[in-house]
Amino acid sequence: MRLVSFAQNDGPRLGVRLGDVLIDLSQVDDSLPSDMIAFLAGGQDAFDAVRKAAQNAPTAAQMRFSSVKLLPVVPRPGKIVCVGLNYVDHAVEISPRNLPDHPTFFARLASTLIAHNEPLLRPAVSTKLDFEGELAVIIGKPGRLIPKSQALAHVGGYALFNEGSVRDYQFRTSQWFLGKNFDATGAFGPELCTPDELPPGANGLLLCTRVNGELVQEAATSDMLFPVPALIAALSEAMTLNPGDVIVTGTPSGVGFARKPPRYLKPGDVCEIELEGYGVLRNPVGDALGE
Amino acid sequence: MRLVSFAQNDGPRLGVRLGDVLIDLSQVDDSLPSDMIAFLAGGQDAFDAVRKAAQNAPTAAQMRFSSVKLLPVVPRPGKIVCVGLNYVDHAVEISPRNLPDHPTFFARLASTLIAHNEPLLRPAVSTKLDFEGELAVIIGKPGRLIPKSQALAHVGGYALFNEGSVRDYQFRTSQWFLGKNFDATGAFGPELCTPDELPPGANGLLLCTRVNGELVQEAATSDMLFPVPALIAALSEAMTLNPGDVIVTGTPSGVGFARKPPRYLKPGDVCEIELEGYGVLRNPVGDALGE
Repeated sequence: MRLVSFAQNDGPRLGVRLGDVLIDLSQVDDSLPSDMIAFLAGGQDAFDAVRKAAQNAPTAAQMRFSSVKLLPVVPRPGKIVCVGLNYVDHAVEISPRNLPDHPTFFARLASTLIAHNEPLLRPAVSTKLDFEGELAVIIGKPGRLIPKSQALAHVGGYALFNEGSVRDYQFRTSQWFLGKNFDATGAFGPELCTPDELPPGANGLLLCTRVNGELVQEAATSDMLFPVPALIAALSEAMTLNPGDVIVTGTPSGVGFARKPPRYLKPGDVCEIELEGYGVLRNPVGDALGE
Repeated sequence: MRLVSFAQNDGPRLGVRLGDVLIDLSQVDDSLPSDMIAFLAGGQDAFDAVRKAAQNAPTAAQMRFSSVKLLPVVPRPGKIVCVGLNYVDHAVEISPRNLPDHPTFFARLASTLIAHNEPLLRPAVSTKLDFEGELAVIIGKPGRLIPKSQALAHVGGYALFNEGSVRDYQFRTSQWFLGKNFDATGAFGPELCTPDELPPGANGLLLCTRVNGELVQEAATSDMLFPVPALIAALSEAMTLNPGDVIVTGTPSGVGFARKPPRYLKPGDVCEIELEGYGVLRNPVGDALGE
């Protein structure tokens, strides 16, 4: 099942996408979850109720999908935790003793989020805005100290993330936080895909990034050094994971700053990230200079 | 003026502390701000209205301060941004060319927050929980690209923060995030002190940390490498600062892991942080083993 957060005049709503049709759940039944976090917190019961409601939705609850203004998949997650250095792109070049023992985590703020089709904003203070195509894991069932063997039971869905990074600010101190947290640089969309539609842990899927149609990143999610269960286990050693929390699982090689010559995003560019079996997250690049 | 967030059965409330008396603003006038972020967003008008209301509060709105359950000063800030390496403790030992050009920022999640008197929780997976006494700056007026010269006009208040850090997790990768984000390790309290009661930027004040009564950290806030206006300017290059956002400004020398031998916090310890002209943030240390 595919669910979206979308905007109406009276605030965010939850919808189910069936092909080109969007079912506005608020127009079907008041007892249904009214936002993505409530859906995720509702577990199997909410899943069953929403699926049944979408299949039997009256015409009045149906909209053209292309006519709605999408929001980030979870508009205000309790946490967005990103993972660095998680793809073995040139495995033969890396000796096993150099592989990290632990995943590298850092945070993104909800204030960075934009939806599918919204512009990634190149800031006024830097020309070094870069793309990073990534698989996003969205937590359903809460937990702490979750063992790897149980981890996938805590996943509520998957989506895509473009982890837009301002490289000069990212690398000017030891901590990447500032360059990863410019306003409107984190694209999160287009929709939540429930785990039943993808392989366990979204493993073994092709993940691609294109800029203006040109392929710039391509890898399989099975190349992750720390697959989804390992990330959930490691993170939940420190913190309780809650419904709607997001883990952004890291990017493959091919990002702009590592290219020769470097290729940064500029206003007018279009970034697309595609995950096999899921779909495409598309964002133009805009300019924050006039903000 | 001193304001607190406190818990009642029906949810969080906003109060003004006058000595040992707490004024429950919800019992004075419905038009007053109902939480700390609303107070901060309300600017001078809210300040004036709250001060007047507190001075003329009926007996029914007065409580014994010691009888209320405090919450973190801002219970769910939009952002909590911490600063690393911000005190020149041994200035004579540091050659000027080694001083950083930019502040080092990283994030804390609201899920780490505890209030004054609540226990800092030593996690099940580590014995290396450490203290860090810090000045917290709370944003009032929103802004982006704020120049240093205007920065203090964006401060809505000050408080104290114990930035509890799990050192083995903090240092096992390049990014400090994980060790800084264990559940219930960030003490934020006891109250918001409005800027009119402290020197500009809370500069020139003595900041101390005591563990079980023993002085372990002592510095002046004027020893910050990047004082409050510089931090606000640097952070707002990347992101819009909003009412209730928190900047935790860094800790002086004397933390446990750098001592010889190291001194980590253990269940039963009591941590106190004191800022001259402000007061004391006090937290016992508890054990998360039984969670």
